[in-house]
Amino acid sequence: MAEILLAKSAGFCFGVKRATSMAFESADTEASLASLGPIIHSPQLVRRLEEKGVRVVDHPDEVVEEAVIVRSHGVTSGEMAALAEKKVRVVDATCPFVKKAQEYAASLSDEGYHLVVVGEAEHPEVQGIVSYGAHGQVSVVANADEAASLGKFSRLAIIAQTTQSFDNFRQIVDVCLKHARELRVYNTICNATSVRQKEARKIAGQVSLMLVIGGYNSANTSRLAQICRDIQPNTHHVETADDLDPDWFRGADRIGITAGASTPDWLIEQVLERVGALTA
Amino acid sequence: MAEILLAKSAGFCFGVKRATSMAFESADTEASLASLGPIIHSPQLVRRLEEKGVRVVDHPDEVVEEAVIVRSHGVTSGEMAALAEKKVRVVDATCPFVKKAQEYAASLSDEGYHLVVVGEAEHPEVQGIVSYGAHGQVSVVANADEAASLGKFSRLAIIAQTTQSFDNFRQIVDVCLKHARELRVYNTICNATSVRQKEARKIAGQVSLMLVIGGYNSANTSRLAQICRDIQPNTHHVETADDLDPDWFRGADRIGITAGASTPDWLIEQVLERVGALTA
Repeated sequence: MAEILLAKSAGFCFGVKRATSMAFESADTEASLASLGPIIHSPQLVRRLEEKGVRVVDHPDEVVEEAVIVRSHGVTSGEMAALAEKKVRVVDATCPFVKKAQEYAASLSDEGYHLVVVGEAEHPEVQGIVSYGAHGQVSVVANADEAASLGKFSRLAIIAQTTQSFDNFRQIVDVCLKHARELRVYNTICNATSVRQKEARKIAGQVSLMLVIGGYNSANTSRLAQICRDIQPNTHHVETADDLDPDWFRGADRIGITAGASTPDWLIEQVLERVGALTA
Repeated sequence: MAEILLAKSAGFCFGVKRATSMAFESADTEASLASLGPIIHSPQLVRRLEEKGVRVVDHPDEVVEEAVIVRSHGVTSGEMAALAEKKVRVVDATCPFVKKAQEYAASLSDEGYHLVVVGEAEHPEVQGIVSYGAHGQVSVVANADEAASLGKFSRLAIIAQTTQSFDNFRQIVDVCLKHARELRVYNTICNATSVRQKEARKIAGQVSLMLVIGGYNSANTSRLAQICRDIQPNTHHVETADDLDPDWFRGADRIGITAGASTPDWLIEQVLERVGALTA
């Protein structure tokens, strides 16, 4: 019987938990409900909501339902405006930490700062945050090298995608110091991410097999798997218990398990059950 | 005949030049003039002003003259208030860059930030800047180690003594990032200092003897000498041509010369003349 180390921080963060319960509640109370983009990056959870009649749409124009729920990552200011214009009821499940970053983007832009958003340009959360800044006055910067190619500014403000690593953030702040006389820095990184990553690192160092559960489209789960892989190459990123390969478990005496911020508890439980059966 | 490399950036910076000409002008136009502290850290220049009747006092209470000049480093808000109360005419020769740092200290404190002043706690410029912050809400931090022992704050603002090194400043900013969710950074370092230091470094690397001219009580001159000494151990800090030791010049084929921000031109010229005679 193998020993299993399950991370305490595995699974739903505050924002995802909140968005998910808002979605299920609204599915019950609203006459009809659409979701603008998948509510969280978990195909399994999105499917459960679809079974309750929640239709995922890609664009505000497609909404024909009476209410629409805005996903935890947030959407752009333009999409929010389009929803308001449609006069559809909006259930705003944007994570409060993401909301805060959007608000900083708006107020710092208003105050005339050039805004640096530390994050991945193609991530919906970042696109949402950027949209609240003044057009042409925002730079998305993924790493210190990209920051180095910024121009000079008199006043620069820096915020971050909530799931960024603090080390990357501080390296970018350091580079930006050379680009402006005034710097305004809001550390909008959510602690949940770093706590989860820290615990994953610790567990990965103590096991011979590491499992990371979460949507393949979830950026934070993929990063979590990469962090574990750097420590324990025998790391597998799985979405569900069905993805487990019995071969992995031969000779595995200690198995570590963690899960991304958008991984529902029931998926973690199913994996735990299957791992128990495979190592019995 | 030895080759002499004289730094272009040697001597008076903008603020010192301004303060000095204000002092000489006021000495001519005011009926009587005191100086609150030495106008700049050059005993020789202070003596010239004394010959024109400008008396140096340590405290506002001691002023019996009709006018008082405030030195380039600035004074504390308490001293400014005491002068205002005395109804003496104040000639404010505070360097505009130092003034800016004082203003930031006041406004950032007003806005509720805990203020970090990067600098030497015992330096009059720093004591002046600190006095504009809210009592008990200001920390003077000399280096990254001291910054590491700061507590946690929700909002932290960082400014610097104008003559600090940028590298020290950025190291402290980096540490402070861990101590607050919001950071407001004003790089109040005056470029003149870094330009002078950079040129001194370059020259020190090309000579067999390096001379740094400036008041022994001048912090920026002492730091300049230290920077040169790290590169060329055969570096001497002198106040005047009289301090030159003929022994230093034996076998010296290339001699570098620079001077602190408070070193008058005439002192540099006297040193140049004497060096010419000693190496002829």
